[in-house]
Amino acid sequence: MAKNKKNKIRSSKKGLGPGSLVHVGEERLDNVKIKLIDYDSSMLEEHEITSFEQCNSLSKSETISWIDIDGIHDAHVIEQIGAKFNIHILVLEDVMNSTTRPKVEFFDDYMFISLKMLELDQNHLLNTEQLSIIAGKNFLLMFQERSGDSFNDIRERIRTSKGKVRGRNAHYLAYLILDVVIDNYIAVSEKFAEEIEKLEQKVLQSNSENTLHSILEMRKELLDFKRSIDPLKEAINTITRELDDDISKYYRDLHDHIIYESENLAMYREMIVNLIDLYHSSLSVKMNQVMKVLTVITSIFVPLTFIVGIYGMNFDNMPELHWPNGYFIIMGLMLVLVVFMLNYFRKKNWL
Amino acid sequence: MAKNKKNKIRSSKKGLGPGSLVHVGEERLDNVKIKLIDYDSSMLEEHEITSFEQCNSLSKSETISWIDIDGIHDAHVIEQIGAKFNIHILVLEDVMNSTTRPKVEFFDDYMFISLKMLELDQNHLLNTEQLSIIAGKNFLLMFQERSGDSFNDIRERIRTSKGKVRGRNAHYLAYLILDVVIDNYIAVSEKFAEEIEKLEQKVLQSNSENTLHSILEMRKELLDFKRSIDPLKEAINTITRELDDDISKYYRDLHDHIIYESENLAMYREMIVNLIDLYHSSLSVKMNQVMKVLTVITSIFVPLTFIVGIYGMNFDNMPELHWPNGYFIIMGLMLVLVVFMLNYFRKKNWL
Amino acid sequence: MAKNKKNKIRSSKKGLGPGSLVHVGEERLDNVKIKLIDYDSSMLEEHEITSFEQCNSLSKSETISWIDIDGIHDAHVIEQIGAKFNIHILVLEDVMNSTTRPKVEFFDDYMFISLKMLELDQNHLLNTEQLSIIAGKNFLLMFQERSGDSFNDIRERIRTSKGKVRGRNAHYLAYLILDVVIDNYIAVSEKFAEEIEKLEQKVLQSNSENTLHSILEMRKELLDFKRSIDPLKEAINTITRELDDDISKYYRDLHDHIIYESENLAMYREMIVNLIDLYHSSLSVKMNQVMKVLTVITSIFVPLTFIVGIYGMNFDNMPELHWPNGYFIIMGLMLVLVVFMLNYFRKKNWL
Amino acid sequence: MAKNKKNKIRSSKKGLGPGSLVHVGEERLDNVKIKLIDYDSSMLEEHEITSFEQCNSLSKSETISWIDIDGIHDAHVIEQIGAKFNIHILVLEDVMNSTTRPKVEFFDDYMFISLKMLELDQNHLLNTEQLSIIAGKNFLLMFQERSGDSFNDIRERIRTSKGKVRGRNAHYLAYLILDVVIDNYIAVSEKFAEEIEKLEQKVLQSNSENTLHSILEMRKELLDFKRSIDPLKEAINTITRELDDDISKYYRDLHDHIIYESENLAMYREMIVNLIDLYHSSLSVKMNQVMKVLTVITSIFVPLTFIVGIYGMNFDNMPELHWPNGYFIIMGLMLVLVVFMLNYFRKKNWL
Amino acid sequence: MAKNKKNKIRSSKKGLGPGSLVHVGEERLDNVKIKLIDYDSSMLEEHEITSFEQCNSLSKSETISWIDIDGIHDAHVIEQIGAKFNIHILVLEDVMNSTTRPKVEFFDDYMFISLKMLELDQNHLLNTEQLSIIAGKNFLLMFQERSGDSFNDIRERIRTSKGKVRGRNAHYLAYLILDVVIDNYIAVSEKFAEEIEKLEQKVLQSNSENTLHSILEMRKELLDFKRSIDPLKEAINTITRELDDDISKYYRDLHDHIIYESENLAMYREMIVNLIDLYHSSLSVKMNQVMKVLTVITSIFVPLTFIVGIYGMNFDNMPELHWPNGYFIIMGLMLVLVVFMLNYFRKKNWL
Repeated sequence: MAKNKKNKIRSSKKGLGPGSLVHVGEERLDNVKIKLIDYDSSMLEEHEITSFEQCNSLSKSETISWIDIDGIHDAHVIEQIGAKFNIHILVLEDVMNSTTRPKVEFFDDYMFISLKMLELDQNHLLNTEQLSIIAGKNFLLMFQERSGDSFNDIRERIRTSKGKVRGRNAHYLAYLILDVVIDNYIAVSEKFAEEIEKLEQKVLQSNSENTLHSILEMRKELLDFKRSIDPLKEAINTITRELDDDISKYYRDLHDHIIYESENLAMYREMIVNLIDLYHSSLSVKMNQVMKVLTVITSIFVPLTFIVGIYGMNFDNMPELHWPNGYFIIMGLMLVLVVFMLNYFRKKNWL
Repeated sequence: MAKNKKNKIRSSKKGLGPGSLVHVGEERLDNVKIKLIDYDSSMLEEHEITSFEQCNSLSKSETISWIDIDGIHDAHVIEQIGAKFNIHILVLEDVMNSTTRPKVEFFDDYMFISLKMLELDQNHLLNTEQLSIIAGKNFLLMFQERSGDSFNDIRERIRTSKGKVRGRNAHYLAYLILDVVIDNYIAVSEKFAEEIEKLEQKVLQSNSENTLHSILEMRKELLDFKRSIDPLKEAINTITRELDDDISKYYRDLHDHIIYESENLAMYREMIVNLIDLYHSSLSVKMNQVMKVLTVITSIFVPLTFIVGIYGMNFDNMPELHWPNGYFIIMGLMLVLVVFMLNYFRKKNWL
Repeated sequence: MAKNKKNKIRSSKKGLGPGSLVHVGEERLDNVKIKLIDYDSSMLEEHEITSFEQCNSLSKSETISWIDIDGIHDAHVIEQIGAKFNIHILVLEDVMNSTTRPKVEFFDDYMFISLKMLELDQNHLLNTEQLSIIAGKNFLLMFQERSGDSFNDIRERIRTSKGKVRGRNAHYLAYLILDVVIDNYIAVSEKFAEEIEKLEQKVLQSNSENTLHSILEMRKELLDFKRSIDPLKEAINTITRELDDDISKYYRDLHDHIIYESENLAMYREMIVNLIDLYHSSLSVKMNQVMKVLTVITSIFVPLTFIVGIYGMNFDNMPELHWPNGYFIIMGLMLVLVVFMLNYFRKKNWL
Repeated sequence: MAKNKKNKIRSSKKGLGPGSLVHVGEERLDNVKIKLIDYDSSMLEEHEITSFEQCNSLSKSETISWIDIDGIHDAHVIEQIGAKFNIHILVLEDVMNSTTRPKVEFFDDYMFISLKMLELDQNHLLNTEQLSIIAGKNFLLMFQERSGDSFNDIRERIRTSKGKVRGRNAHYLAYLILDVVIDNYIAVSEKFAEEIEKLEQKVLQSNSENTLHSILEMRKELLDFKRSIDPLKEAINTITRELDDDISKYYRDLHDHIIYESENLAMYREMIVNLIDLYHSSLSVKMNQVMKVLTVITSIFVPLTFIVGIYGMNFDNMPELHWPNGYFIIMGLMLVLVVFMLNYFRKKNWL
Repeated sequence: MAKNKKNKIRSSKKGLGPGSLVHVGEERLDNVKIKLIDYDSSMLEEHEITSFEQCNSLSKSETISWIDIDGIHDAHVIEQIGAKFNIHILVLEDVMNSTTRPKVEFFDDYMFISLKMLELDQNHLLNTEQLSIIAGKNFLLMFQERSGDSFNDIRERIRTSKGKVRGRNAHYLAYLILDVVIDNYIAVSEKFAEEIEKLEQKVLQSNSENTLHSILEMRKELLDFKRSIDPLKEAINTITRELDDDISKYYRDLHDHIIYESENLAMYREMIVNLIDLYHSSLSVKMNQVMKVLTVITSIFVPLTFIVGIYGMNFDNMPELHWPNGYFIIMGLMLVLVVFMLNYFRKKNWL
């Protein structure tokens, strides 16, 4: 369970006081990579840099600098960035902690957003990656655990100056990023919906314990999903209240999307409960069928066995035994009895 | 599942930035149709138009223009309308997105209402259609996914000047439209109630797994219904707060209706839970009956078979075998035993 | 189901615009009956009138006029009353709609209360009747679906000038009426409590599916009850905030009663859940007993049948068969086996 | 069920208007007893009086008068007290009504607290007694349904002037009384905890339906307990807001205790749910064991019976019958079969 | 159950008035131990003292005094400390009461925090210890039930002047302490996660009632955990509102951690529900398997036994008996029947 692994790492910080920058989470990358896109409506510069000193000289204050840091385990790098952009130590701690809850915090010079990027791996297990965004007046810092992301469309639009990105501030850029992340949620959610439908087919076909296990696994996944989304609802709502009406309209739109997704989730969760119900009752139905077979077989053959037993007795005086057609009469009677019982069971719908 | 289909289409927007008008949802209509009704208390004009340029010249600003656009998939048309009435781009995006959550938003010049029209198709599955209303001072834009709606009564009343419609503003017209939609909810809800009653009959009669499947299907439908209604409750409440007391009284009335319907829904949902309970317990009751038959048959015939087995033994010295009436005595004894057991089971209520 | 019937009628209004007075609900009375009691601390007049024109001349403005209209299906009468007392059209619509949710609305000149009168019919099914009260400064309009009510005590107290009724305003009269209605709730609730206790006895005695059906029926009834009471809680709370402290004290008292009743309901609902639990587990216990009987009979007689089968074999060389006491020895051994098994099952508590 | 009894009496008030003082509840005492303790920091007087006229002359206005009225069924006495201390008629009604919900009400000259004293009777059933406290500036009226209470410690402390009681006002005295009542709740709660533990033992030992019945009974009791405590939480919270900070600190402490107790209750309720789960699953486990015994016995002896049946056939030509050791070979084969099956079932853990 | 023990002791206070300092809870320590650390940014003094008189002279008012009292059962010591630092009597009572709910209270000169330290003992049972913190301007009193704690890291950081501790006030010190306690919660929570995973393995392997018992035990433990955490959420939220923004940022961080932990708990609780579902259904699956074995054995051998019974009958005229190969023909037929039935059951997936 991915959850546990994180926890284990989380508590490894125990003993270290707060204010000390320590990475909490799996180390998913060897070296920190830093990409810089520097733009305003008239110019655009792009650099892949390896040390932050380099980056330092580049980010001029008038233009918007989008700095994308891949890898959050290197305290030294994080500290330098924090120092340059004057970021509070607790924010830096949250950035380095991959278990930070989705949230938004407003500071004098910047807003800090922490959220989860979600995707399903090949085993259909939910894979979460921490994304931290610090959006100031002229800069946007973006911290990811791994390199490789879904934001190339945004970069392309900046490069080609498509849309209104280049003329807008960093909060708008943050909105674009969040929009991509939340659209990914919906893609993940669709895959869940497909999975649930497959599970429903499975339940109706067979009743191996495996099926129940998969259902319960899915329930856990949905719970995990919910944990990523629910705090974000409130967080984005906070942004809509804090920002100017002009930009907050966009965030209000995001808020609608996330609520839509959250309602989807609630529906999936109810569908899982349905599935468990279905599973249990199909177990019962099958048990019922087994019992009916047992009862029909027993009810037909046990009386017959009794009858043939009678004529297997060794009494000296048993007149029927000496009738010439005794054997055939008895066989005929038993046949009548079988027909009668089959009819009875057919009427009772047991056959 | 209709829900999934929508989702699939929803995420197809992924990669496109916000602010770009893209249709999300099934394309349910070939060409966009635009109907215009232009009226005030003294005059009335009605036009079916094919291109919006035409419509452009018609909508004079003093009279109330009710523009009904059937089809939300043509970005070009939506954009033109948006430009003419000065509608925010995000609103236009919501209009084109058939998965938009029911909601109300107030802008300087207009209010935007998004909601679902519901009807049951021939398979008793819930069919939802997106309805968007933009009500300004002198105009009301209404966007539907398909042509054909339930608003002909309103149109007729405008034409015949019945009621107070002609002398009232666009917010009152919006109220009339919402009233029809919500009355349709109640009609749908009645059909659900009938379905639930039929299901109850089915459960009491037979226990095929099909029945449970229908019950769970119904639970999903109700959940879907709930998703259309619940956000609307809050949305209409918002309207009652924002509009003047004079008109908000009408919306307060709508609010009462929607809460009434929402309570109906809650009741149906509880009835579904009842049905599942009933289903499970009727499974158990039937299992019980099967077991009783098995036990009665076994309990009567197995001991008898044992007795006849005794006298089938081949011991040299078995005195009873040589009694002249041994056979008849044993047969009589077994009859007594059967009578005794039948009595016992009758007393235990197993027969 | 009474609920459905109402719904069916409710949607029959579909197509008619709002503002048109149409009766929604069963027509329970042939003619509308209007009773008038006109009083102040010094005088008292009482009239049964058939047309409202008559009533018109009678209700002098200084005294308090309690006008009791039995029958809400005649739009003409309702309209006249509305015109005379200047009642909003939407209030009149609510008055004529027997599915209106319990609620309170305050207007400039009057307050409008809508609630349900409850009683159990001979089949112990919940019977609801719509009661609408419009309480102005000097008048109180009371609309019932049927003639015959529980308010004769109040009328008697007005006639005999008992209590402080005559010297008080219409809001106090409304309070007296509500007090009677809510006291009736408690009477109904007591009958529910008795029913639940009877059901508990039934469950412990027998397990027919009928019993479960009655329990689930009761659950529906309680849900219906809840729907009448829960909105009233909030409504009466609203009154306590709107009225002067002097009179609102009385309504606060009503509020306490209704909350008390609502808590009773919650308890009954939990008791129903208990009953369902009890029902299911008593089904299981009975199944267990049936299985034990089956197992005991089988375990005793199947091995014995095997033994007698052995000595029914026809081998040439079976020494035991020729022992003089072989038969008796085997019979004795089987007796020992039976005693041993009975002991075993007794120890296992299966007998 | 005590609840019902109360209800029955409650509705016996039906027909009587409000404002008429009528006792609602069981009459638990023959005569009303009134005890008076009159004290300030310097003096102390104590009287047991039989008529309130007597009491009238005693309660001087400067000192604090603690008047303890045992018995709430005598309207005459209640009315006199009400008149003397200027108590609102609705408060007096609540005092005489043993079904009043726990609550606090503030009036100009006094605060009115209504709550339940709880104790478990010898059958471990929850016994509730209504306690009403009216605390004014210099007086505290305390109404109980029966004589005999848990407040002797407080009386003793007043007499011996222990603690700060004598120098404090009536609100502090009210706090002391509430503190004793809530401490009693905790004592009752402990007994519930013990009962639950006993029930857990019972479930693990046997599965009589009685056990489930006791569990469900306990659930009802806890629900009853909850109804006494939950409204009190809010009531005491109200007091902390209304009183001065100096005294409200003490009530805040009470609030903590009552929340602690309320959380205990929630835990007990969850433990009851656990017990029901345990009960049901232990039923299933036992059923499983019964089925295994049945299956083992059947699986071993039915094939054996078949084999011996074969050699009981009367065919002319059955070579085995004439083998000299045929009988012993068959017996040996059957033994091998039994050993094999026993092994199989042991591996399957069915033995 | 630890809970009960506490309760028993809690109610032992019954009869003693409030304002009297009495220890509630187990006495876990013989002698009270008091440790003092006195520091500012320039100096540091450390003393282990046995009587508070000694301590009295040491705590100079300019420096920050961290006084750690191990043992809360000695009323005399608590009273002296209370007197010196001017602590309210109710706070001292809470300090001495090991059942106090987690909470925060603000007084003029200090804030009072009460919370639980958690750890799992060797039997994986939750062990709670009461921790009370009173943080004033220049002092921090810390009360524990036992000596030995997890705060040595903080002490070391003060001694070595690592971090910013020495230059900060007592509220920051309180934050450091809370941070350690909450980090411990997370460590405990990880162990729970491991336990739950082990239980899941157990359920899938065997179905002893023990497993269910462990699951339900775990559910109780989680409930206990929840009771320690949930009130703390609100308490820390209160601190963030009351303190200055500078320091409250740190507490906001704590708030995030505690909410994260609380969400973990919710997930564990849902996983427990999953486990119970899994347990029950695996019981059913096993029952199903047992029934199938029974049915297969019965269905094959009971008809065969009937057939051999036929040829054991003693009729004079049974032609088959005299066929030379009659015996072998019948044996062959039975073999065919067996093969047919095995096929049938294999197709039905019962083998």
